[in-house]
Order: sequence, then structure tokens, then C-alpha cells
Amino acid sequence: MTEMVAIIPDAVRRAVQAQRAAMRTLFDQLRQDGLDEPGISRDPYGDGEQRAHATVTRAARAMGLEIGHDDAANLYMTLPGRDRSAPALVIGSHLDSVPHGGNYDGAAGVLAGLATVAALRDLAVTPACDIVVMGIRAEESVWFQVSYIGSRGSLGMLPDGALDVRRVDTGRTLAEHIAACGGNPDALLAGRRHFDPARLRAYMELHIEQAPSLVEAGQPVALCTAIPGNFRYPYAWIEGSNDHVGLPKRFRRDAAIAGAEFAMALDALWEEHEAEGIPMACTLGRFHTDATQHGMTIVPGRFDFSLDVRAYDPAVLAALEQRVAAIVAGIEQRRGVRFHLGTKAHAAVGPADPAIKAGLERAARAQGLTPTWIGSPASHDGAAFAAAGVPIGMIFVRNENGSHNPMEKMTIEDFLEGTGVLTQWVIDYAG
Amino acid sequence: MTEMVAIIPDAVRRAVQAQRAAMRTLFDQLRQDGLDEPGISRDPYGDGEQRAHATVTRAARAMGLEIGHDDAANLYMTLPGRDRSAPALVIGSHLDSVPHGGNYDGAAGVLAGLATVAALRDLAVTPACDIVVMGIRAEESVWFQVSYIGSRGSLGMLPDGALDVRRVDTGRTLAEHIAACGGNPDALLAGRRHFDPARLRAYMELHIEQAPSLVEAGQPVALCTAIPGNFRYPYAWIEGSNDHVGLPKRFRRDAAIAGAEFAMALDALWEEHEAEGIPMACTLGRFHTDATQHGMTIVPGRFDFSLDVRAYDPAVLAALEQRVAAIVAGIEQRRGVRFHLGTKAHAAVGPADPAIKAGLERAARAQGLTPTWIGSPASHDGAAFAAAGVPIGMIFVRNENGSHNPMEKMTIEDFLEGTGVLTQWVIDYAG
Repeated sequence: MTEMVAIIPDAVRRAVQAQRAAMRTLFDQLRQDGLDEPGISRDPYGDGEQRAHATVTRAARAMGLEIGHDDAANLYMTLPGRDRSAPALVIGSHLDSVPHGGNYDGAAGVLAGLATVAALRDLAVTPACDIVVMGIRAEESVWFQVSYIGSRGSLGMLPDGALDVRRVDTGRTLAEHIAACGGNPDALLAGRRHFDPARLRAYMELHIEQAPSLVEAGQPVALCTAIPGNFRYPYAWIEGSNDHVGLPKRFRRDAAIAGAEFAMALDALWEEHEAEGIPMACTLGRFHTDATQHGMTIVPGRFDFSLDVRAYDPAVLAALEQRVAAIVAGIEQRRGVRFHLGTKAHAAVGPADPAIKAGLERAARAQGLTPTWIGSPASHDGAAFAAAGVPIGMIFVRNENGSHNPMEKMTIEDFLEGTGVLTQWVIDYAG
Repeated sequence: MTEMVAIIPDAVRRAVQAQRAAMRTLFDQLRQDGLDEPGISRDPYGDGEQRAHATVTRAARAMGLEIGHDDAANLYMTLPGRDRSAPALVIGSHLDSVPHGGNYDGAAGVLAGLATVAALRDLAVTPACDIVVMGIRAEESVWFQVSYIGSRGSLGMLPDGALDVRRVDTGRTLAEHIAACGGNPDALLAGRRHFDPARLRAYMELHIEQAPSLVEAGQPVALCTAIPGNFRYPYAWIEGSNDHVGLPKRFRRDAAIAGAEFAMALDALWEEHEAEGIPMACTLGRFHTDATQHGMTIVPGRFDFSLDVRAYDPAVLAALEQRVAAIVAGIEQRRGVRFHLGTKAHAAVGPADPAIKAGLERAARAQGLTPTWIGSPASHDGAAFAAAGVPIGMIFVRNENGSHNPMEKMTIEDFLEGTGVLTQWVIDYAG
């Protein structure tokens, strides 16, 4: 086996390109496994995700990788390194999906890990440390309304009460679902972890881009500056007064108009940040009058909304929280309504590690690409590893039509470009 | 019986005040009839309205009034005049309510008619023409999503298709509901009418104010300048694109933010009219993301709303329609969304008759009140009579806490003040 010998980038490229047919077959099989028209569904800790795990496991076994699982039923497929006791390099992504989602969100990152390992094999490279390809459980928060279940489970960092949360469709608890898939919820509850973050060299993830920036830029691949942090109010509402449609303006306490003013103030806040070149995003996903009370001739007395505000800089995020509070106070005063923001959820910014960023930049150039840097549009498991102190990096692959829908569209060519950067980086970093 | 003899206003006042106990009892009985905590429900062409009709009919019978019904099952309680062939004076209001509404919206007007007739009796006045107290059916549009069913039915002016509309809770058609209450939907369909508008002397209605203007002004009674006309889009929606929460701003086609911008533009439009002293109102009663699709991490791709815009001047209303269209076009262009306004409903402005207004002003002064003039905050059956060419007038009675809710609060004292003006006017006009 080659050790510490420089591999020319062209050889890396050829070795990665050689995985094309195998990866195509694997993507096709995953699509068959998850078919749930329109699109695919890989329900976490359920049949859809289980089938994906089985398919990926078969492929890893055929490649001779070591197969393992942890208490959260995450899947580990390991290429042993020269020093088995050295901190390992994890290449991971999730194998679940949103309901009726696309085939690439999550799965592309796991397959990129397998393709990388296969390329290393073909190049006869034995890495310095173990390379662990991780099939992560339950990343999509739509099912359990909890983020990063698998990755946080592997780090012993599941939030309090998470195991008691019920999957929105089945009504069964996360603990029941984990147990049914061979995991050990009791051990998770006791805080047992699979990874000691201090014993991990890095966490690396390839993911399809969930926005069309790369389509717009005409680039196949981007490198990630950070995974956004956020604050969220999942169940906020505005209390006004239900009144008759004929009520003059000065007497109204219209909760819907208050909601509209709030939305427009946030829109202006976002505009202001865009103008200053400070990336953020702001989403009112649920934004609605109360269907049990509303009607054409009723001034709405209640207005419900969810708010997700995300940014890539903890200071920006903190300032945004203060701005939101000021907006709320102003509207309350002007419109005689009361905001009930309810539970606040919070996720820290997950910045990419500076050394990894530099390494990825070099790897991209070596592979003939002009590096494009973007903030991750979406949240990813990498944020959980970053929060645990693990150095992280991410690679985005061009993807038309967004994600979380059956129309997502990544070409195998772009996938292999991204995997080329990943493989080059692994060889540079742990070759 | 006294004929054409001047009655001193003090005698009118005493005769009206003498109805206090009887009216209290009648209001209490109606509340019992409609009890449906919180508040009361008098569902049109249903049990609630039927019980109110029965109670009012019993009272009218005890007063010796002639009882009659028409094809729409409206109730007529007639005090015969000296000339039975002379155009009649109708004093009416509706006996239905919104679900869980208050006891006075509608019913106060019918009882004011009965109290007026009772006062005429006590004063030994036989009016020049028939005085017809009308218990109108199905005024509240929340049930069938059709306005002025009873009054338009009496005038042979039900809109096309109205008889096939289904009540939102029962799912049965208006025709079925009318037939079940003893009406004749086939005759209505054939256009048969109870009233020839040319043979009506006037339509007069007393109603609780549905805004707190009189509470604010410290006045018990106001006289009506006009019933507002309106245009309405009951089922409008905005088509955007459902996208991932991480999507950058420039790619979004957020239907909810488009809805918010629409609401704020209408709010500004209303502010502008207020500043110019032009009365209008604008209500987005339903204003909501799609519950089958929305979620905290989804950019809303669909936003539904209802719009009601009302004003007291046909020219103002027409100009408002143009402004709304321009607002829609601007938002469509700026935000890449599409508005689907759907069916438009339209109601003409119902101005009070100038001669009746002058008469009401005199009557109010005779009863010791300083006349306060307001545009009707809400729509009323009078608008249907006005549209048919019948001279109309309205009297509003102070009412705390608005209407269409269980908290509405009219005092018997204020009711009798309003009824005093009504009775004085009837004697002046048809004594």
C-alpha cells in the first residue's frame, strides 16, 4: 500500500470518476427503496430509512468496510487507517428524507463518503487514520420536531425530553422508534455516547445545495463558510380582538394586520442586511388567522405564526434577536395587540474550521475548480459536530429546483466533481 | 281613535318608556331561546331563528297585530292604518344571529318596531298607513355566504344561484332550509315577491351600533347617513412557491410575505382616506397560509385571504377597486407571485333618504337628543330596500363591546331612547 506518497490530482480525479457506474446504481437502488410518489420518503427510524440503511450497508460490505452501529442506530462504515488509535475522520450525512422529498438530500453525502473510500482503495492509499463513513439517522426535523437526532445522539448530546417526543405521523415516541431499529434508548438517556469529540479529527459532509446559487453562478461545487445558527419561535401568536367588519380603524386591534406589519418589518430588516452584505434569512412558515374563528366579516382577533431567523455570525444573530424584540414592542404599542412568542429554540452557528477551509480551497484548485464560498442555506448535522468542538467542513453540489421536494436535480457529473474535491482533501489531510 | 292630532313629544316619550318591562321580558325570552354558550345562536332557517320567530309572533299576537309570512318565511306583524291600500311603512330587522353572537344584533330592531306599535296603541294613534313590523330572515352572511337573504327574498331580488347555496354547517341548501321553515323556494325561484318597492312608503331600521363611536361620544343614539356599499373577494389566494427555509431572498416567491405586503398597502390606503376624512373600511377576515402545506421550515407557496372593502360613496368605492388592482399588480411584479382574486361580490351603497334624514333629525330634537350622524359601520337589510328604490332610514343605539360576540351590551335605557326617536318619527311621518 502507498503511504505518504504524493498522488497526482489527475489520478485522484480518474479514481473518483471510476465510481460513476457504482454510484449511479446505488442512487437508483435508494430511489427504488424510498419510492413514495410524488418523490421518495425515507421516514426516520421507520421502513423508508431502514431500507436505505440496508442498501448502503450491503454496498459497504461489498467494499470490505467494517460495519458498526451505535445506541442511536447510526450506521458506521469504516476504512481502517494505519493508526487505528488515531482520531478518526468522519465523512457523513443523513439517510432520512422529508415526506415526498428528493433522492439526493442526505444520501448524496453518504454515497460521496463511500465513493471517496472506494477511490482511496483504487489508489491503494491507506489513510493515516480511520475514515468513517457515517449514515446518520433522523436529521429532518419535520418528523419529530427535533433537529440533528442521529448526530447529537452519537455525541451524547440529545436534548432533554427528546426521547419522549412523538413522531408526528405514527404517534410513537422517539425512544420506541429507536428501539424498533435496534438502538438503545436507555443508553442514550443515560448519556452514553459513541464519539468522544476530542477523539475526532474532523467531520466532513457533502450535501446538495438547497438553493439555486450554484445554478445561478454556473458552478458545480461550492465550499461552505458556516452552517447558520438560528433562533426560532415555533408557536408564536398575536392576541388582538375579534370584531365586526364595520369597526372603524381607530377601534381595531387587528391581529392579522399586526402580523402583516411584523412580516414587512422583518422583510425590511432582511433587505437592510442584504444591502450591507450580511447573510441571513428569515421565514414565517406558518402565518395564519385562526380557522376556528376567522371569517370574511370578522376582524381577526388571533394570528398565529412560526418564525425562523438564521445567520452565520453569532453577533449578527444576537443583534437580530434584539431587533425582533424591538419590532414586536413597536407593533404592540401602535396596534394595541399582544405578541405571545412562546417557546424559543436556538441553534448555535456552526462555522467551518479555518484549516479545513484552507485545505478544501487547495483541494478544489487541485481538482481544477475555482472555489466558490457560500454560507450553508440550510441546517446540517455538521452543526451538531461543530457545537461539540469537532472541526467541520462542508462541500455543496449544484442542485436545480431546491430540496425537500421531488424535483431536486443533481447530476452525477456534479456529484463526482464534489466527490473529487472531497477525495483530494482526504488524501491531502489524512493520506 | 286620535287622527291627525298633534301628540306632544313628552307623551310620546312616556308611551315608549311604558314599554320597558314588556321589552325586557321579550329580550330575556329571546336570550333563553337562543342560548348557546358562549352567547346565543339563532341559526337562520334553523332551530335558533325558529324559536325567535315563535317568541316574537306570540308577543305580536298578544298585541292584536295581524300576522303574515311570505315565500322566504319572513314574518310580518301589521298594525293596520286608516288607509289599508296606502303604501305601507316597514319597520324591520333580522332575527338570526352569527354563531355565539349577542342578543341584540337584529332582535333590537324588531322589538323597537313592536314597542313603537305598542306606543302608538297606547297613544290611541291609528297611523295613516299600515305599519308593518318585519322579522327578517337570514341576514348574517356567515351561514350561507349570501347577504340579505330575507330582505332580498321579500323583494324578489335573490341573486341567481342563492337557493342552491349550502349552509356551511348543515350542508343543506338554502331552498331546503326555507322549505323546512314553511317558505316556498319554488315561488322565490320564479321571482315572486312579497313587496312591490313602489308600493312601500319607507323602510326603517333600528340597530345596535357595531362599533363604539357612541360609547366614545357619550351619546345614546345616532342617525344613519348611509349603509356602506362594498366589494368583496371571499376566496382570493396568492400563488408563490413552496421552498426550503434556507432559500436566499432573491430566489423566494413567498406567498405569505406577498400577503403581508398587500395587507400593509391596504392599511396605508385606509390611513390615507382617514386623513382626508373619507370614511371607508377594509378587512382581511381570512388571512392564512395553507395548513396542509405550511411548516416552520417551509417558505409558504400559497396564501389565502378574504377581502371586504366598504365605503359610503359609489365613486370612492370605484376608486378603491382601482387602487386595489394597482396594489396587486405591483406586488405581483416585485415578488414574482400571482394573485387569484376569484369571485367578486358587490353591494351598492345604500344612502338614507334625505326627507327621512330630515324627519329623523326633527324627531331626535323633539325627543331631547342632539342628533349625531354616522355612516353605518356594518351592512344591513336596509341596503337591499335602498337598492330596490325604497326610501330608507336607520337609527343606531349605543352598544359597548361591538357586535357578533357574546359581550355586546345595549342598555334598555338606550334602547328606549332610540325607540323614542323612531316612534316620534313614525307619528310625524305617518301619524
